Amino acid sequence: MTLYLIGIGLNDEKDITLKGLEIVKRSDKVYLENYTSILHCKVDDLEMVYGKKVHLADRDFVEKKGDVLVDEASRGDVAFLVIGDPISATTHLDLFLRAVKKGVKVDVVHNASVLTAVGVVGLQLYKYGRTASIVFPQEGWDVQTPYDVVKENKKAGLHTLCLLDIKTKEPSREELRKENAGRPERPQFMTVNQAIRALLDVEQKRGENVFTDETLCVGCARLGSKDMKIRAGRAKELLADDFGEPLHCLIVPGKLHFMEEEALELWKQ
Amino acid sequence: MTLYLIGIGLNDEKDITLKGLEIVKRSDKVYLENYTSILHCKVDDLEMVYGKKVHLADRDFVEKKGDVLVDEASRGDVAFLVIGDPISATTHLDLFLRAVKKGVKVDVVHNASVLTAVGVVGLQLYKYGRTASIVFPQEGWDVQTPYDVVKENKKAGLHTLCLLDIKTKEPSREELRKENAGRPERPQFMTVNQAIRALLDVEQKRGENVFTDETLCVGCARLGSKDMKIRAGRAKELLADDFGEPLHCLIVPGKLHFMEEEALELWKQ
Repeated sequence: MTLYLIGIGLNDEKDITLKGLEIVKRSDKVYLENYTSILHCKVDDLEMVYGKKVHLADRDFVEKKGDVLVDEASRGDVAFLVIGDPISATTHLDLFLRAVKKGVKVDVVHNASVLTAVGVVGLQLYKYGRTASIVFPQEGWDVQTPYDVVKENKKAGLHTLCLLDIKTKEPSREELRKENAGRPERPQFMTVNQAIRALLDVEQKRGENVFTDETLCVGCARLGSKDMKIRAGRAKELLADDFGEPLHCLIVPGKLHFMEEEALELWKQ
Repeated sequence: MTLYLIGIGLNDEKDITLKGLEIVKRSDKVYLENYTSILHCKVDDLEMVYGKKVHLADRDFVEKKGDVLVDEASRGDVAFLVIGDPISATTHLDLFLRAVKKGVKVDVVHNASVLTAVGVVGLQLYKYGRTASIVFPQEGWDVQTPYDVVKENKKAGLHTLCLLDIKTKEPSREELRKENAGRPERPQFMTVNQAIRALLDVEQKRGENVFTDETLCVGCARLGSKDMKIRAGRAKELLADDFGEPLHCLIVPGKLHFMEEEALELWKQ
């Protein structure tokens, strides 16, 4: 009779903790939130290790039918699996609060998150300022916000982690008109290159010398996996690079300690 | 022939991931870094689950004899276990760099960190500014630094996570003169109450209205464990509270979103 929010880590079916796995195995129903991140394994792989059917929960389900989930947890144990750590996103906090309000017990099993996995780059985690999110322009969001976040953090000598947009299963009107209407759009993941271009576009408009061709930055792909890629260099250098499969993120360093400089050298080759 | 830096999570022997456990089981030697954090289980409990002897590595060993560790990893697989996520602290980054410089393969297995586990409080993680560290005054550190961090973050509307000091096995001169000379001092863990008093002391001297008796803050203890305690309230209210066993941390919220306000209400009772 508990709603368990369980982080399953960043990469594959083996990133769940022993504690998480025990709970999944004894839960009455298991959901996987599959719209704010992606794994590098198949749902089948999860099911194989967990020994359980894993039900996919998309944005629509979680945001609109969160109460169904909470109701289920009032009648039995429900494991709600989240890629990374389970309460990094607002949506999951909302679920947490809904459960508490209905008097349903909630328990959280933590796991790795991209917010700390970026530590591997070698920039000290306590010197990161506010986190920025760069989204695809068609979302109607303002790409000036991340530019301002980088600006403020830099002013304070702090590093900025830019999380990059993921678009899953939200067909545009045009998509719906096409012959594949009804079928979900292919998920889109913003690349390091697209993120750099977005920041350079704002720079071109505002000219405040916050993020130029010459700005040192660090591009990351697939953190926490065997084939992760990290590369440090000027924005224009990284623009020419291919970071491969998702997920990507971009770091704009602030003031560097000598040990941080030394670490970044590793990723410049 | 690899140095594995493996996060074992925040609480007990069941917080390791399946991936981490597989590596530990096949490693030639297993170390546990035991001076930057603590677990809520015994080393025996770890050894029972891991099926391996776990060697304790204190600050002295890691900082002065890190090369021994790296050398061992050039001859076989060495698992270096870290409470929380393995590269959140500078020391471990140093180990990472030493290994790379000596041409020894390093691999990182991520896990939960207090930096993201604080998400459970309900304040959005991307709205945290720089992280502050509050240390015991006798360390010779300046307690004004965390005050300034809170000040800067608040100005930008951001939350501040204050990590609290841990003193392990570093006997003072006085201690050494006493009859128990040679025996390690009992570890000391800063409490939420001590942290609040430290910030109030600076406020009294500087009077900049950054952190007063009336400042809303959130005290946390044992995040990630079954008996975690979270309480939100004015500084003076939290001062009167008992947060119990370590580890503690303190959050000073910035500007609150309505959902964050709602979440904090949970912890005010």
